[in-house]
Amino acid sequence: MKHSFLNDYSEGAHPRVLELLVSSNLRQESGYGEDALSLQAASLLREATGNADAAVHLVSGGTQANLIALASMLKPYESVITVETAHILVHETGAIEATGHKIHGLPGHEGKLSPGQVREVVAQHCDEHMVLPRVVYLSQATEVGTLYSKAELTALSATCRELGLYLYLDGARIAPALVSAAADMTLRDVSALVDMLYVGGTKNGALLGEALVINTPALQERFRFHLKQRGALLAKGRLLGAQFVALLEDGLYFELARHANAMAAMLADGLRSTGTRFLSEPVTNQVFPILADTQIAALRSLYGFHVWSRVDPGHSAIRLVTSWATRPEAVQGFLQDFAKVAVGHPVPGSRASPVIGM
Amino acid sequence: MKHSFLNDYSEGAHPRVLELLVSSNLRQESGYGEDALSLQAASLLREATGNADAAVHLVSGGTQANLIALASMLKPYESVITVETAHILVHETGAIEATGHKIHGLPGHEGKLSPGQVREVVAQHCDEHMVLPRVVYLSQATEVGTLYSKAELTALSATCRELGLYLYLDGARIAPALVSAAADMTLRDVSALVDMLYVGGTKNGALLGEALVINTPALQERFRFHLKQRGALLAKGRLLGAQFVALLEDGLYFELARHANAMAAMLADGLRSTGTRFLSEPVTNQVFPILADTQIAALRSLYGFHVWSRVDPGHSAIRLVTSWATRPEAVQGFLQDFAKVAVGHPVPGSRASPVIGM
Amino acid sequence: MKHSFLNDYSEGAHPRVLELLVSSNLRQESGYGEDALSLQAASLLREATGNADAAVHLVSGGTQANLIALASMLKPYESVITVETAHILVHETGAIEATGHKIHGLPGHEGKLSPGQVREVVAQHCDEHMVLPRVVYLSQATEVGTLYSKAELTALSATCRELGLYLYLDGARIAPALVSAAADMTLRDVSALVDMLYVGGTKNGALLGEALVINTPALQERFRFHLKQRGALLAKGRLLGAQFVALLEDGLYFELARHANAMAAMLADGLRSTGTRFLSEPVTNQVFPILADTQIAALRSLYGFHVWSRVDPGHSAIRLVTSWATRPEAVQGFLQDFAKVAVGHPVPGSRASPVIGM
Amino acid sequence: MKHSFLNDYSEGAHPRVLELLVSSNLRQESGYGEDALSLQAASLLREATGNADAAVHLVSGGTQANLIALASMLKPYESVITVETAHILVHETGAIEATGHKIHGLPGHEGKLSPGQVREVVAQHCDEHMVLPRVVYLSQATEVGTLYSKAELTALSATCRELGLYLYLDGARIAPALVSAAADMTLRDVSALVDMLYVGGTKNGALLGEALVINTPALQERFRFHLKQRGALLAKGRLLGAQFVALLEDGLYFELARHANAMAAMLADGLRSTGTRFLSEPVTNQVFPILADTQIAALRSLYGFHVWSRVDPGHSAIRLVTSWATRPEAVQGFLQDFAKVAVGHPVPGSRASPVIGM
Repeated sequence: MKHSFLNDYSEGAHPRVLELLVSSNLRQESGYGEDALSLQAASLLREATGNADAAVHLVSGGTQANLIALASMLKPYESVITVETAHILVHETGAIEATGHKIHGLPGHEGKLSPGQVREVVAQHCDEHMVLPRVVYLSQATEVGTLYSKAELTALSATCRELGLYLYLDGARIAPALVSAAADMTLRDVSALVDMLYVGGTKNGALLGEALVINTPALQERFRFHLKQRGALLAKGRLLGAQFVALLEDGLYFELARHANAMAAMLADGLRSTGTRFLSEPVTNQVFPILADTQIAALRSLYGFHVWSRVDPGHSAIRLVTSWATRPEAVQGFLQDFAKVAVGHPVPGSRASPVIGM
Repeated sequence: MKHSFLNDYSEGAHPRVLELLVSSNLRQESGYGEDALSLQAASLLREATGNADAAVHLVSGGTQANLIALASMLKPYESVITVETAHILVHETGAIEATGHKIHGLPGHEGKLSPGQVREVVAQHCDEHMVLPRVVYLSQATEVGTLYSKAELTALSATCRELGLYLYLDGARIAPALVSAAADMTLRDVSALVDMLYVGGTKNGALLGEALVINTPALQERFRFHLKQRGALLAKGRLLGAQFVALLEDGLYFELARHANAMAAMLADGLRSTGTRFLSEPVTNQVFPILADTQIAALRSLYGFHVWSRVDPGHSAIRLVTSWATRPEAVQGFLQDFAKVAVGHPVPGSRASPVIGM
Repeated sequence: MKHSFLNDYSEGAHPRVLELLVSSNLRQESGYGEDALSLQAASLLREATGNADAAVHLVSGGTQANLIALASMLKPYESVITVETAHILVHETGAIEATGHKIHGLPGHEGKLSPGQVREVVAQHCDEHMVLPRVVYLSQATEVGTLYSKAELTALSATCRELGLYLYLDGARIAPALVSAAADMTLRDVSALVDMLYVGGTKNGALLGEALVINTPALQERFRFHLKQRGALLAKGRLLGAQFVALLEDGLYFELARHANAMAAMLADGLRSTGTRFLSEPVTNQVFPILADTQIAALRSLYGFHVWSRVDPGHSAIRLVTSWATRPEAVQGFLQDFAKVAVGHPVPGSRASPVIGM
Repeated sequence: MKHSFLNDYSEGAHPRVLELLVSSNLRQESGYGEDALSLQAASLLREATGNADAAVHLVSGGTQANLIALASMLKPYESVITVETAHILVHETGAIEATGHKIHGLPGHEGKLSPGQVREVVAQHCDEHMVLPRVVYLSQATEVGTLYSKAELTALSATCRELGLYLYLDGARIAPALVSAAADMTLRDVSALVDMLYVGGTKNGALLGEALVINTPALQERFRFHLKQRGALLAKGRLLGAQFVALLEDGLYFELARHANAMAAMLADGLRSTGTRFLSEPVTNQVFPILADTQIAALRSLYGFHVWSRVDPGHSAIRLVTSWATRPEAVQGFLQDFAKVAVGHPVPGSRASPVIGM
């Protein structure tokens, strides 16, 4: 295989992350996230999200972040509202339900939820024979690579506050979302609109690590008990601290995302120039071109990617993901090989089959 | 209020149930379902369902039956497939999810699931990032009062066996389903097609009680541990035993359901004769006439019923339920009052809004 | 077998309970505990416990009451303190742990917990690597038939309030405890000292039913959601309501317990007069005489009882339980048969082997 | 502070672990533990444990390993037997109970369980009113630094097989246990006696990582579903793979443990030469000297350590832990400072207060 565009975690960490790991390695530190690097990371995250009173906890992965965050917000009979393509609903092996909670999966519009949908679910749940919706879960960028605008997120936030719901944002890919040409929000803007979010490290240059930022004071209480109980307190928490210090202290975090987005744009532009159309407009580091089955078959032996959804009997959308580590040569190589492939005629008009995302 | 058609559990028990309770009251019996009445009930249920090797356990209600049955069949990462109107999905306050399991809610056709839908869900769940579908949950009659035919249930059963899924049937209203004019199955037919079912008592003349019948030997193992752990082993299990002995030993169970269905048919015929149309064809003890809002408003002060779903801007379907205890006079009274109400013009063509059922 | 002294739930209900069931049977009532009988029962229980603002919920059994009550009081990382003989720790098949919570089992003194023990457990749990103790669970009478005095319960209550713990009391056998000659508390006294308790029906003349009384306002919130989710909302809640109305409206509840205690006292006096000694001083409807193995063997074919714990190589304590339905003739018969049994010489000095209680 | 003897995870990773991370960093790899490093690690672990058919899964920490392993082995009503000092019982915030399962904590003899104790618990749990014990959990080395001998582990293993119990071994500190002068087992010996174990990385030179080795085929089934559901599948599983490849490919794993043990022996010998006594005989990398309170106070400002348990009114045991990173100079410095401290006279005869371990 020439190159894998399967995802943004095919390589290890950015070298500066490894350098910090190495340089801090022999220092004796406290365990379980109370080391100097974790404390510094928390401080950098409070700065970056603009809330000096936020509680920050570093965990090792996204499913872990989501299940602990959501379970900590919910009473036994409370539930989560989200879109039907949401990662927690499709790709986390029932991790949220395993903590005892129902998820309402609503049809998304470009992978996004609207205030009206939230309002309708709340209205339908009116007595003790039904669960009580309590948290709205979003991701930015969404599972299908789209973005909530500032106006959209503001409206959802206001709706949640009005209805007594918490708003939680999964930021596994918040870095490419924030530096997208289509973005109209800073990290501070996003954070100010949600009760809790996680700022993703794994998919943007870290070996592992997601940073939970808890804005709402009531949700901060005894959070370390939840972490420990779910197996999320690493003895050498310094490992997590080092990721975020390296990424955040000099702006590397956004620099890496900009590179990933630039590589995606190069891919998208090259494809578009051949007449290729897209399942959704490429704005971050995920590109969903619609290709003929024959093209897909031809490319498959050379490149790694997911076949995302069937668009019509002869065409499917594929997903190409770039990262901090994608080199321009890899993109150019792909475009050259693509040019050689016999060109089919994508007919993207019809509705895609149910999306199976990652 | 003249009469409540809200549900089939507004009255107590059929007098013969009470008589048996009284006559057996002072006999000393073993506790926790090992009394003579419970043993006799189990025997009658094995006879009625046609499986001499079935394990039978009596529990106090439907949600309890469902949560224990389903949790007993599932490993932590396994899930349940059903229709989106299913009782377990909408009206049990997340009881199944509270045991740790996800439910897939699929659009029903007349409240029913098809083999193709089951097959598609199984096909979509292909690796460890997703739950593993393991049980199909049906109810007969369905939440919207319709029936699976023998052909339909046979096809679903075959699909489940082929795919390694268990088939579980919620029989809260199996009595009116079995004696419906539209029915083409006996209780033995139904039971032979499923791994586990419950035969409902509460909604057909008992004070309380649902009888879990477990056909598949692997699912019988240590079932009493599940019952005890979930708080379902009544110290005076005789109370449950007496319900089913009284109902089953002389065919009272089916006699009561026939009465309920006859009263529903009288209601439906009376309404149809005035030109009223129905959300679904009435075949059991639930009738869903589509009425004008003005009619509904006029009837509401006189009769109890649920407004089920909006059909168009001026009309909604209501739900009228009859029971073993419904007297013909109550039905006639309703029809007479209905005749007085200014007649609107139901236009049932458009799709109903999301059904909120009970 | 001549008579079973196995427990206090071998018979059905007191006839006045059945009479009320019969007389109210055909009245149409609301479902799920919102019927007139349940509302009246709640009112009678508020009166009996002396808290006009208490929330009252009727459930079908003790394990159900305990698991719902405790789970409703606890966050995921919180735990329950009790004695190692407690029903929830030994005889409920891990029902509390199944809701996700650890129980600390401490050695009891005569089946009872002391404030010092509670204090010590709290002191030992000092950080997020350990659970956070949050509820103290007691039963009155205890599993071994003893009673907390008013001074003891007051001290425990004060300790809990000081330490920020909830105090929950399992009153499966609170009726015989309250009318015991050794009692120094009324139901109002007990209730005023605890955050939540349940007043037991099943073991004192009801067919089924335990009444949860929630004194602390924060614990009352949305309790019906917990009930429904755990399968505890009976469709015909009237059945539960009728039990407590019949028992409480005319003082029948205490009258039945007095009878049970009187029968136990007759048993104890008869045994004591032959030189028999007891595992603990009989004060309620449970009597734990220490008998020679040969006596036990001889009685076993004639009477039902549990062999409770081994006291020394030749002797064991047995448990004899009386109830509202025990007739003096049965007690006299037992004493006469006992007199015929060759008398051994109980040597009760040594410590009993681990108690396995029910 | 001059040096911390608090634990064996105060430093980062052994440099060879970091070197492998760096050298493999830019290679594109599959995610979620299906990368080349993880596959190689699994192969090395199968070799090291001597079971070519073992399933191997790498997770990030001990609590995560334990909760996933135990929950995967248990049906809802099944429980775990262990000693009352066990990590899962005391120091994992109820993580096992949070998956729904009760733990039986038995008094340990030098932190160890005996076959007789296991047998007794099984005998006491005889019906569906009690949980069903199903797994025995041990750790090697134990929480108090002692070792199971080959004879002891063989006897426990035979008892478990006889009684139908699974045997699970927590090997957080199995490396120092295996290379202890007191050891009489190899890793293959240990593994052959248990159904599942984890081989600990975090406390022996890795940044993070514990390797679950599943010997029993029935327990291997769909284990990755459990991992994903609990948030334990790292997207960059290569990070875990690299730890174990670096540690195992050239015997570094045992070399590091030998160093840790040698440093502990140096500490113990130095202390013993001054007349110091120990809570338990030091055989691995944990040393529990009994010191006078005045000594403890004097040392506390200079060195990090846990005060483990009170031994008598004037003395306590402290815990000193060494690791692969402990330099002889640090030990010698401690011993020199200790020599300066006014010598008290430990009187270790009396029983220690309840041990609070880590």
